[in-house]
Amino acid sequence: MKLLGKILDIAKRGILLNRLDARSIGVLDGDRVQLINPKNGVSVTAFIDTTSTIAGQGTVGVYRITNERLNLAEGSEIEVREAGRPASLDFIKKKMDGGKLSKDETMTIIKDVVNDDISAAELTAFITASYINPLDMDEVEHLTRAMVETGEQIKFASRPIVDKHSVGGVPGNKISLLVVPIIAASGLKIPKTSSRAITGAGGTADLMEVLANVEFSATEVQQMTEKIGGTIVWGGATNIAPADDRIILQEYPFKIDARGQMLASVMAKKYAVGANLVVIDIPVGQHTKVPTMQDGRKLAREFIELGERLNIKVECALTFGDIPVGHSIGPNLEVREALRVLEGATEPNSFIQKSLSLAGIAFEMSGKAARGTGAAMAQELLTKGKALEKFRKIIEIQGGDPKVKSEDILPGEHEFVVRAPASGYIIEMNNRSLITLARIAGAPHDRGAGILLHAKKGKLIKVGEPLFTLYADRSWRLQNAIEEGRRLMPVLVEGMLLDRVPSISVF
Amino acid sequence: MKLLGKILDIAKRGILLNRLDARSIGVLDGDRVQLINPKNGVSVTAFIDTTSTIAGQGTVGVYRITNERLNLAEGSEIEVREAGRPASLDFIKKKMDGGKLSKDETMTIIKDVVNDDISAAELTAFITASYINPLDMDEVEHLTRAMVETGEQIKFASRPIVDKHSVGGVPGNKISLLVVPIIAASGLKIPKTSSRAITGAGGTADLMEVLANVEFSATEVQQMTEKIGGTIVWGGATNIAPADDRIILQEYPFKIDARGQMLASVMAKKYAVGANLVVIDIPVGQHTKVPTMQDGRKLAREFIELGERLNIKVECALTFGDIPVGHSIGPNLEVREALRVLEGATEPNSFIQKSLSLAGIAFEMSGKAARGTGAAMAQELLTKGKALEKFRKIIEIQGGDPKVKSEDILPGEHEFVVRAPASGYIIEMNNRSLITLARIAGAPHDRGAGILLHAKKGKLIKVGEPLFTLYADRSWRLQNAIEEGRRLMPVLVEGMLLDRVPSISVF
Repeated sequence: MKLLGKILDIAKRGILLNRLDARSIGVLDGDRVQLINPKNGVSVTAFIDTTSTIAGQGTVGVYRITNERLNLAEGSEIEVREAGRPASLDFIKKKMDGGKLSKDETMTIIKDVVNDDISAAELTAFITASYINPLDMDEVEHLTRAMVETGEQIKFASRPIVDKHSVGGVPGNKISLLVVPIIAASGLKIPKTSSRAITGAGGTADLMEVLANVEFSATEVQQMTEKIGGTIVWGGATNIAPADDRIILQEYPFKIDARGQMLASVMAKKYAVGANLVVIDIPVGQHTKVPTMQDGRKLAREFIELGERLNIKVECALTFGDIPVGHSIGPNLEVREALRVLEGATEPNSFIQKSLSLAGIAFEMSGKAARGTGAAMAQELLTKGKALEKFRKIIEIQGGDPKVKSEDILPGEHEFVVRAPASGYIIEMNNRSLITLARIAGAPHDRGAGILLHAKKGKLIKVGEPLFTLYADRSWRLQNAIEEGRRLMPVLVEGMLLDRVPSISVF
Repeated sequence: MKLLGKILDIAKRGILLNRLDARSIGVLDGDRVQLINPKNGVSVTAFIDTTSTIAGQGTVGVYRITNERLNLAEGSEIEVREAGRPASLDFIKKKMDGGKLSKDETMTIIKDVVNDDISAAELTAFITASYINPLDMDEVEHLTRAMVETGEQIKFASRPIVDKHSVGGVPGNKISLLVVPIIAASGLKIPKTSSRAITGAGGTADLMEVLANVEFSATEVQQMTEKIGGTIVWGGATNIAPADDRIILQEYPFKIDARGQMLASVMAKKYAVGANLVVIDIPVGQHTKVPTMQDGRKLAREFIELGERLNIKVECALTFGDIPVGHSIGPNLEVREALRVLEGATEPNSFIQKSLSLAGIAFEMSGKAARGTGAAMAQELLTKGKALEKFRKIIEIQGGDPKVKSEDILPGEHEFVVRAPASGYIIEMNNRSLITLARIAGAPHDRGAGILLHAKKGKLIKVGEPLFTLYADRSWRLQNAIEEGRRLMPVLVEGMLLDRVPSISVF
């Protein structure tokens, strides 16, 4: 049926059909239709909503994200047809029934994900099925390649190309802000694409955005990397492995990170940017995604095997993940801490040593440093100010102010100091609770929100001494965080009361 | 944040926020918010879309279905807040991890489903998880009770109350149109709620709607049943077990009907209408939902066990499901066939015998007839015109024309006769393909669309004799069905060519 298109400024996919037109086409609310723009021949699948008034008979409202692909001019003609059932649904059903997906079947699903031919609910069925019936290594490889092939790819003229990834779950893990400039300062190329926080208090992209733009195309990432050796950008804007973002969005409500999808997600991004040497940081600890060393070693072997299948050399570093990295959690606080280290600070040790170790592994893999000397080489690049110099170039090429200093970056104006309720050793810091608290305070959206830790696990502390400070950009968010903190008790001091009825506050 | 509400005539759930307001509240596209109408105190969860123009800053567009619950007046104030994460998501995750859900956990999920506190994608995760990790009988009972308790319930003053259900998958299964009037004619009460076709060519509600209204409240169903002994209405309008419709909608893309959910779905509706004697028709056959007798017996035992837990006496009839019931598929054709039988026709035998058997089981269960004499009693009520008389009363009380005759009901005006391409026995009729074909012709939406079978499996037929006629209300749909029929070949004649390259048509 030919209708006249009306662009509707609603930031979503889909179209709005008049009820009577929907009936003529033979579709109901939520059904799938095929849209064709006769001017450019573009064909897109969309799901329908209906109305009796907003779109009159003979017209169709096209939501903004769908029109980004259709490119329909206001008031011009559009063909709307009942859409067939995508073959993906049969393959998803196959996975639900415990079957193994072939390369072609996986490709069909991922193409449909990227083209919006399947709904969020249908994608969730795929994710749930792959979570319960885990993908084997063949399927993981198919998924990785499908993710790569349905997005942009960067091909560098020369190798090696280095990349680095941290498996999430540890708050304050700002190490890319050190590792990338250190590696780039050595002359190696590292086109780092990173994520925004989904469940965390700040992804690397959220942190970098405090200092510079992070939204660039894949071509720009390549050009910047060729020019100055490194970038720190948001992967979502590059259209590299775009299926991955959609998968992660659907995993979010359940806080799952299915093993196969996680492996594919990480390695697809490395493959697509042309990396052939990859260092992976696997934080191990009770409150991280990888609870035991055994789990960590298994995951490492899987990354290495998948790397071999893709011709990427992978080394993994199992790191201590039981407590936050450094003392800060939240965008501004973490960026300030990273800048201080680049400027010469020799603390916090946990943050510096971890970054140097990972950069060192890359140096040894590339042959820049002999086995056992990589970390020392990294240390030298840091101490001599080469890393800071390189970081400023990265900031500058990404449109930020290269003269920025750590003291320019301020935490939120609203703060609350949490003090030790008793004297004793700090016996536990709960990563998940710390992240939750930083998020409630507004991180990562509110850049100044977060947590500054004054003492870490194992330290002896006296009653009334500060344990940590909560920061927020907005006072009501600080209040929410204070209330939630009373419930969560993310930092425990030996000897403190864990509960008392009727309840008292430990703050 | 307080905003001014603007009702948006879009037939869906959710709200449309201005981008800047969304940012102030701290939510992104697709996030969950809590809405409160200060006038009546009603609080509802909704998912957000954003716009820069359609809702200006300070106003919020409220989509129609969400406003059916909020009951907001145009332009009046509404409170919009970031919503917490529903506990359901943890319980769904538990099921994904293979855990067993408690009564309370199941209730929480089903409440959230009914209140729209979880999204379609989140519900799909629950369905997928319960499909892969099947619910045990305790969980099925919890689910059944939760479905009942989150909807309307009918309580009759006296028992027995009879009900009947057919497990789907067999085309042309119009038996409720005979069974209900026969049972009601005996003096037993049968408040039959039925479904519209989801994957079929016509649910009982679609058929009954050819003759009368089918949308009534639970109270009206009770009153009509008290008055004349029976009803045939659409369950969706009664608000009985409303969670079930939402579950079925999400199962639809994958054509799944998870065992536990199916048991709960059927029995929740029986329990909620107050039934204590239930006959269940389980069609067994290669192309139905129950492929073997063994599967059929297992399902029967599960229905009976669930019935015992709910104090409902259940008997199951395993019926022959390999070919359609009667000769017609599609609303008008099936209604005409049923009316003819009620008016005295003695064919088709398959349709009549099946209906009499099922009504007979109900008579024996209730004590109206001795063991082994139920079907004869049903036959008598049919032959003596008592069933027709009762059916006319049902039609009348549901607002239809009680004088309607079979010859008043006409198939679609566009038709195409498919003839035998060879002489031989009919060796196969594929139920799924027949249903698909009827749907492509327009059934159940186009009431006249469908298929009339001129011969059934096992019959000897000569080349050129009619196999079946396709009917449609619209010629383009007939064309589509003809094309698809060439591919599907739903009726096979021994000796006919199944394929030939280059291809020829078998029509």
